[in-house]
Amino acid sequence: MQTNQMKKYSLNEDVINYYMKLAIEQSKIATDKLEVAVGCVMVKFTNNNQDHEIVAQSHNKTNQYGNATLHCEINCINEILDKYGQNYDEQQIFKQITLFVTCEPCIMCAYSLSLMGIKEVYFGCYNEKFGGNGTILDLNTANYGANTYPSYGGFLEEECKQVLKQFYEKGNLNLDEDKRHRRKKKEDKDESVSS
Amino acid sequence: MQTNQMKKYSLNEDVINYYMKLAIEQSKIATDKLEVAVGCVMVKFTNNNQDHEIVAQSHNKTNQYGNATLHCEINCINEILDKYGQNYDEQQIFKQITLFVTCEPCIMCAYSLSLMGIKEVYFGCYNEKFGGNGTILDLNTANYGANTYPSYGGFLEEECKQVLKQFYEKGNLNLDEDKRHRRKKKEDKDESVSS
Repeated sequence: MQTNQMKKYSLNEDVINYYMKLAIEQSKIATDKLEVAVGCVMVKFTNNNQDHEIVAQSHNKTNQYGNATLHCEINCINEILDKYGQNYDEQQIFKQITLFVTCEPCIMCAYSLSLMGIKEVYFGCYNEKFGGNGTILDLNTANYGANTYPSYGGFLEEECKQVLKQFYEKGNLNLDEDKRHRRKKKEDKDESVSS
Repeated sequence: MQTNQMKKYSLNEDVINYYMKLAIEQSKIATDKLEVAVGCVMVKFTNNNQDHEIVAQSHNKTNQYGNATLHCEINCINEILDKYGQNYDEQQIFKQITLFVTCEPCIMCAYSLSLMGIKEVYFGCYNEKFGGNGTILDLNTANYGANTYPSYGGFLEEECKQVLKQFYEKGNLNLDEDKRHRRKKKEDKDESVSS
């Protein structure tokens, strides 16, 4: 199994899991801040993947800014563009960047990543509700007028789900009381993301 | 025909066309700035649609900021949230806001509008390449974990297309020379949006 996976990915699993753990750290920061528990890290790989450096990391900030679009992937895109400035051709940097995210990108993020021309995506748990990298829509491969990119799921899946589950067990305190514990009412069988 | 449409829409066509013309003005500003020629206006409707005021208007700014996600709809969302501040519950304002945009929202924008809980969308020409309000995907009605909203197309369609066509005839000067005139090579039969 591992051998097959090793052939498929451009990175080895030690590297993938290292960065996925950093993404999980971000998801835990989100939980502490009462944000939906999803985190990510964007890493620039160069020199045939021998060199890598973190260029951005973030967690969901929708509640902090009252802006439902501020998912962790969007925050990282904005951070990178702020860092490299408006005259930098974003295609040049994003095609070297790999995303590690604890949950499959949603439809908005999946298409944003396509527009930016991201190199590759590794994610933890699958997003059964609005996953845009294969679960609900396949925006990373469908080539709807933008770039395509490889995307692989299931890395440290249980750990990623666990953080989300803990978040939803407390309830999303930013939702109305009647909506707060809807996951538990659904017999807690679905840990997909909800904002 | 008009009678049927009148029944379908919550606004009368004079109001729709008035704001669509303002959106077209924005698309022309985009052209002047060598941005993809799409513009929009967000209008807050209250008092059973008797009162309306512009809360944001914008055009595509992807080249200005080197950020492929800065479509006019995203710019307006950000402008409104900046104006109302981080403590404002965005659901309260966006459910009163109607979008008028010269071209059907793309997949990213369509889902962003869904996340924000926008009230309604009126657009000019259809986006045959990556339209998210019915042409390629139906993100406004599919209820992929977020809100649904009504969306109607074809308002001042020819005028909206004409502005885009003029933009593409000059060529998107921000693209490489070999990609610049691809629409003309395709016999100019398709005026759908490309970034």
